[in-house]
Amino acid sequence: MTQSMLENAQRAEVLVHALPYIQKYYNKIIVVKYGGNAMLNDELKAAVMNDIVLLSLIGIKVVLVHGGGPEISDTLTAMGKKSEFLDGLRVTDAETADVVQMVLAGKINKELVNRIGGIGGKAIGLCGLDGHMIKVTALNKEKYGFVGDIQDVDPQPILNVLAMGYIPVVATLGCDGEGSVYNINADTAAARIAGTLKAESLINMTDIAGLLMDKDDPTSLIPRVNVSEAPQLIHQGVISGGMIPKVDCCIEAIRRGVKKVFIIDGRLPHAILMETLTDEGIGTMFI
Amino acid sequence: MTQSMLENAQRAEVLVHALPYIQKYYNKIIVVKYGGNAMLNDELKAAVMNDIVLLSLIGIKVVLVHGGGPEISDTLTAMGKKSEFLDGLRVTDAETADVVQMVLAGKINKELVNRIGGIGGKAIGLCGLDGHMIKVTALNKEKYGFVGDIQDVDPQPILNVLAMGYIPVVATLGCDGEGSVYNINADTAAARIAGTLKAESLINMTDIAGLLMDKDDPTSLIPRVNVSEAPQLIHQGVISGGMIPKVDCCIEAIRRGVKKVFIIDGRLPHAILMETLTDEGIGTMFI
Amino acid sequence: MTQSMLENAQRAEVLVHALPYIQKYYNKIIVVKYGGNAMLNDELKAAVMNDIVLLSLIGIKVVLVHGGGPEISDTLTAMGKKSEFLDGLRVTDAETADVVQMVLAGKINKELVNRIGGIGGKAIGLCGLDGHMIKVTALNKEKYGFVGDIQDVDPQPILNVLAMGYIPVVATLGCDGEGSVYNINADTAAARIAGTLKAESLINMTDIAGLLMDKDDPTSLIPRVNVSEAPQLIHQGVISGGMIPKVDCCIEAIRRGVKKVFIIDGRLPHAILMETLTDEGIGTMFI
Amino acid sequence: MTQSMLENAQRAEVLVHALPYIQKYYNKIIVVKYGGNAMLNDELKAAVMNDIVLLSLIGIKVVLVHGGGPEISDTLTAMGKKSEFLDGLRVTDAETADVVQMVLAGKINKELVNRIGGIGGKAIGLCGLDGHMIKVTALNKEKYGFVGDIQDVDPQPILNVLAMGYIPVVATLGCDGEGSVYNINADTAAARIAGTLKAESLINMTDIAGLLMDKDDPTSLIPRVNVSEAPQLIHQGVISGGMIPKVDCCIEAIRRGVKKVFIIDGRLPHAILMETLTDEGIGTMFI
Amino acid sequence: MTQSMLENAQRAEVLVHALPYIQKYYNKIIVVKYGGNAMLNDELKAAVMNDIVLLSLIGIKVVLVHGGGPEISDTLTAMGKKSEFLDGLRVTDAETADVVQMVLAGKINKELVNRIGGIGGKAIGLCGLDGHMIKVTALNKEKYGFVGDIQDVDPQPILNVLAMGYIPVVATLGCDGEGSVYNINADTAAARIAGTLKAESLINMTDIAGLLMDKDDPTSLIPRVNVSEAPQLIHQGVISGGMIPKVDCCIEAIRRGVKKVFIIDGRLPHAILMETLTDEGIGTMFI
Amino acid sequence: MTQSMLENAQRAEVLVHALPYIQKYYNKIIVVKYGGNAMLNDELKAAVMNDIVLLSLIGIKVVLVHGGGPEISDTLTAMGKKSEFLDGLRVTDAETADVVQMVLAGKINKELVNRIGGIGGKAIGLCGLDGHMIKVTALNKEKYGFVGDIQDVDPQPILNVLAMGYIPVVATLGCDGEGSVYNINADTAAARIAGTLKAESLINMTDIAGLLMDKDDPTSLIPRVNVSEAPQLIHQGVISGGMIPKVDCCIEAIRRGVKKVFIIDGRLPHAILMETLTDEGIGTMFI
Repeated sequence: MTQSMLENAQRAEVLVHALPYIQKYYNKIIVVKYGGNAMLNDELKAAVMNDIVLLSLIGIKVVLVHGGGPEISDTLTAMGKKSEFLDGLRVTDAETADVVQMVLAGKINKELVNRIGGIGGKAIGLCGLDGHMIKVTALNKEKYGFVGDIQDVDPQPILNVLAMGYIPVVATLGCDGEGSVYNINADTAAARIAGTLKAESLINMTDIAGLLMDKDDPTSLIPRVNVSEAPQLIHQGVISGGMIPKVDCCIEAIRRGVKKVFIIDGRLPHAILMETLTDEGIGTMFI
Repeated sequence: MTQSMLENAQRAEVLVHALPYIQKYYNKIIVVKYGGNAMLNDELKAAVMNDIVLLSLIGIKVVLVHGGGPEISDTLTAMGKKSEFLDGLRVTDAETADVVQMVLAGKINKELVNRIGGIGGKAIGLCGLDGHMIKVTALNKEKYGFVGDIQDVDPQPILNVLAMGYIPVVATLGCDGEGSVYNINADTAAARIAGTLKAESLINMTDIAGLLMDKDDPTSLIPRVNVSEAPQLIHQGVISGGMIPKVDCCIEAIRRGVKKVFIIDGRLPHAILMETLTDEGIGTMFI
Repeated sequence: MTQSMLENAQRAEVLVHALPYIQKYYNKIIVVKYGGNAMLNDELKAAVMNDIVLLSLIGIKVVLVHGGGPEISDTLTAMGKKSEFLDGLRVTDAETADVVQMVLAGKINKELVNRIGGIGGKAIGLCGLDGHMIKVTALNKEKYGFVGDIQDVDPQPILNVLAMGYIPVVATLGCDGEGSVYNINADTAAARIAGTLKAESLINMTDIAGLLMDKDDPTSLIPRVNVSEAPQLIHQGVISGGMIPKVDCCIEAIRRGVKKVFIIDGRLPHAILMETLTDEGIGTMFI
Repeated sequence: MTQSMLENAQRAEVLVHALPYIQKYYNKIIVVKYGGNAMLNDELKAAVMNDIVLLSLIGIKVVLVHGGGPEISDTLTAMGKKSEFLDGLRVTDAETADVVQMVLAGKINKELVNRIGGIGGKAIGLCGLDGHMIKVTALNKEKYGFVGDIQDVDPQPILNVLAMGYIPVVATLGCDGEGSVYNINADTAAARIAGTLKAESLINMTDIAGLLMDKDDPTSLIPRVNVSEAPQLIHQGVISGGMIPKVDCCIEAIRRGVKKVFIIDGRLPHAILMETLTDEGIGTMFI
Repeated sequence: MTQSMLENAQRAEVLVHALPYIQKYYNKIIVVKYGGNAMLNDELKAAVMNDIVLLSLIGIKVVLVHGGGPEISDTLTAMGKKSEFLDGLRVTDAETADVVQMVLAGKINKELVNRIGGIGGKAIGLCGLDGHMIKVTALNKEKYGFVGDIQDVDPQPILNVLAMGYIPVVATLGCDGEGSVYNINADTAAARIAGTLKAESLINMTDIAGLLMDKDDPTSLIPRVNVSEAPQLIHQGVISGGMIPKVDCCIEAIRRGVKKVFIIDGRLPHAILMETLTDEGIGTMFI
Repeated sequence: MTQSMLENAQRAEVLVHALPYIQKYYNKIIVVKYGGNAMLNDELKAAVMNDIVLLSLIGIKVVLVHGGGPEISDTLTAMGKKSEFLDGLRVTDAETADVVQMVLAGKINKELVNRIGGIGGKAIGLCGLDGHMIKVTALNKEKYGFVGDIQDVDPQPILNVLAMGYIPVVATLGCDGEGSVYNINADTAAARIAGTLKAESLINMTDIAGLLMDKDDPTSLIPRVNVSEAPQLIHQGVISGGMIPKVDCCIEAIRRGVKKVFIIDGRLPHAILMETLTDEGIGTMFI
């Protein structure tokens, strides 16, 4: 028993060290953008849901925004349709849009909601169609089909769901004035939602450790980037390829009033808790 | 202009005649079970959504519960899976359960939500997984797979969504204690939800005109059935075949505290309004 | 039954067509100025009260403001006093002021309240003395006696009564700093009340069809007047005589923040509903 | 100055002595039945209104119920109609009912409301027609005409008006199911209203000093009567004539849940304050 | 009985005369600074608590701020410590600070709270440490030790306690960023608290009759001083010695938004009531 | 960095393991009885306050009840008074009662409040005199003097302070009907307060490890005692001496509706957290 008491004492120490972080985020909104590999591994998914429920219980208002690229492709394949991408965007004809809606709002969204419920949390799944909260226009109908460019986000449905004591889980779909449904890039949507909610922070869970000075050296993590430094980092090639649009979303979120934006490694179990409640950040913070 | 003024006067008369019905249902809950053919025809769908929004605007708390049989089969077919039925229930293996979830919660549910938003209403789509509100056990796992038998309905998520001023649109899925997702019969679910909400009325939109004394004579509609008369009507063969489980749900709803249950003809445009706001019922009422 | 079903379908259509108008006025304040002949005919009175209750039930905040010229004269006559008018205003000595108060606040006001109650609405009758809400000074004590010039309207009592779920019915009396009671022109009072409440619209029920280009030709109705065009219309003689002060009140209401002001024909049954919930205006709208 | 300081010190003493009485009635409902001579004398009327406003300001919920016998007769006389009484009740034909309504709800009620406003209080005048709150049937239509027998009092309008921070001033009219207006005995109405509101006390302002053992000896006041003793006092002739129905109302109020009922001398200035906030009762208390 | 009735009538008159003063202060905040001799005499203490409870009951939000000089010295003496003063301030070493805290927050504060409870009021005792509401820095640590200079007053704890229906009784202690406890001058603290609360008035209870033109002539009271006249009065020697810092506090309170500040003679029983609820001020008012 | 990342991951694990405990206590009331040695050691005091603030932040309603034996004796000594005990109770003459009040409510209470404020929590210090919440009679005036026997605890002040978002810190004093102040045993007071609040649990921090089967063997801890077993344990001598009244309080709390009562070792840092948020209890639980 002495052994376990010791452990308990250590556990208590950890909780005590979390205190100032809990105070800092108390009653504030944190938007978590969830996707990529962290979403495919079942164990990691469980860890992320645990983190979300824990943050919610200790008085932080967590909004979970998710995309779902790979599962959309899988379902399209199962239905004998090929996925086609242009400029990094999924070319989305009407039939594909239907599948995107089914997979995002019906499969992934409700699965996350279900998991949260399974560990004692309370979630309600929303998409941009609920309360018609995400209004879009076509980015370029001819080229990409039903890929949406966000015109307006109404924060009310999310705020209402938070006020009722549920964790909002948001699938990134939008609608235009004619009622057509559009696929939206999840990073962009998360940034806009966080901005509209004036969130305290936006946490982007990615497949990388954060921004690395040398992308082959995992110890070269850049812990903090001022948005004004971003162009320079792009110029240097530190931010390149698929990271450029991700970083653009971070900057956009900061511009729209989010206090801090993080890019963290979603492959680490409990990365969200580590970033939020411990004294060492584990990814890159944009301010 | 005299002509149109005349028309306007007539319109005003209609509105005035609706007054006592509006008063009767004011601030009361009406559950509408929507499905079948009325759901497949686009024009009818638009009319139903109009009715829902109108009732909601004039102060009635409408809850829309839907199933989605044909679309589930279509998607299964598109994915190369055959639909299989046993005792009128869809045999639901894990893969099929996934498709049911996608189609109900992602496709049909959000489409209805989107349509309501398109005509100026405000809806939030829910399924039994949201707030873990519909708890089920397997009816018979070996025989039917993931077909759920409702154990408990938590009315809170629906009541919260109503309280926030949205129309709840509910897809009939449930979950068990292990987090598995189940398909549930929509008629049964609507009856249980209406009962839990102590709804003023439950309106079942079907493909028939109501109960007919002689099923080949549309003028032989039975306008009102006391639940105690049902066994006799089954014995006489007036209620038979697929109508038996539907009528059972009506009776179950009455037993659980719903004041009135209607079976109306969903193929008539604005059947809900006619039943609710005019002086002649158009279907069969159970009391 | 086919026959009545047809009718029911038509009725449903009418209700559906009213939907956008209901949405437009939902939770907005409409002030109805009621008086003149529409008030003397018992059947019309019943129709007006029906309209008021209906608008109230479908979520519109209706405030009913009334005068009562003819009944005041009748009561004075019954008491052996002669009515005397100067510049269109009733010369109001102390004794007359007493009768005005009795008839407006005691007879007409409570009769309207009673009628609303009789058809299932809930009304509370107020006058400018309640909560001391209408403060006046004498317009010209020597010339007209107790005829009041409105100094201030406190919206609180009306807003409180609305918030409690009642229809406020307001008799147009005012009081000065010494506690004397004054008769006030009902058109002016309605315009001031609507302005103070920042009402969505003010509906003046009159004995005419609206503004006519040719006052002998009922088909020459002017459907819409911009307040800036009014001087021109007076100059042309289109607005003349007793219409001039009425139109002045309309303009005053617009200036004080009312969005739209209507002059409609109170002799048409359900004129309010026709103007509010159907697609063709029936009188003249000032904007 | 010493002189006035002395006076101020005495005044402070008086306020301090009122403290326990203020505590006793804090947030409780007191119904004051006001009528008779106290209503005719202008100075007394001012004193009564002062008392009402004072009680209201120190946190007591005062409801003022009034009749208006003499003024009704005066107005009838002015209109050339004779007042006729049977069994102590005014015979009320339709025309008389109209006058009763005008005088009670239009003249007296609004005058009291106006006076309260004039000394800085806030009142709203109600009658039994507002919110249809007093439902009656005819006591005996053939004999007395529109004299009402109270069937039901809805406390909601009065409670709402109190909750909004106004003093409700209530004229004792009622309506039947057909919308006809009835005269009601003010003592009876006050007792019923007080009972429905579960008032802490009902104060009846009368023209006598209270119950006297010897009606010619003002020093023989009976300070306290248990309702069970009333029959005995009637038998002894101590309660007789017009006092019998008044005492019946007191007893009825006690039976309906009012804690204490007082008969006090309305001719004494500030009789209400003396009874409520000082240590010696001035009339007769029924318990 | 006539005798006592007469007295009751006079009492009622007093209450009626208080009416306008009650109206004036209704729902307003009055801060009472209590200390000096009025605190040492048991009878006066009872009178002050009576006044506080009475004002609180009639709807005035009273905040009682107290010091406690003499009792601190007594306790220090009992513990064998000498009191030492410099520039009128108590030199406060760590041990003395402990005693100050004990006496102010534990003895005097809770005794006042207890007395208020004993006469039926409800009080909660606070000090500057509760909710960390009074933040200070050392005035001059070397010279005076733990004597605080107020940096910030958080009004929330006091407002919360008022909102819950309690009388806040405040001991004038403060804390610095390191958690040390400081003694604060009670006059200064009362002025700052009143300013932060935007109080309607601040009443300083002192041992003098107010400002006197000739300090040996009690009839030479200056009833009203404009803050701009203060320097002149100091120059003339009318304000001198210990009165100078007291008057400075009055001026500071006015500058921070308190409407009126009074210096009254705490030795007069019920001085607060006399100043607040009667028509003649008894001390000096600063405006 | 790998090193610290590892640590962070472990920390995250600890937080995740706390999740079910946080869920269990969410929005529930925990009363912590604090005293004895844990109170004398400065470091332990800081640890206890940290635990209290942490529990409060994660949504648990913590009420801190404290005594203060040793400090009372110290202050009495400093004032030249001897502490005298009879039957384990401090003999409390009037002078001693004064000191008890000062030390408990002024020194210890406000020091705890101040410490909570210092680490970012918000506390308000109360004692049984605030809102007159703890009513006592003398246990035996002749024998023990002002030692109180609790008659009644009004939960309102504590519930109000919790509702306003503060941590109530309660000093165990009481008052009788005459306003005298009494010392109360802190264990008894904590049990009564917890019972009145229907607390989820009462945690008694003591100087021992819990109940030991063999008091000389720290490994013989009894983790769980059913209240029905207590007499047997007393009979066996497992519970003896000073533990008997402590255990009596535990049993009393259970009887008054507290769900679980713990005796834990206050000498262990973060004992409260270990007991509340980790999976192994560290003391003895009574149920």
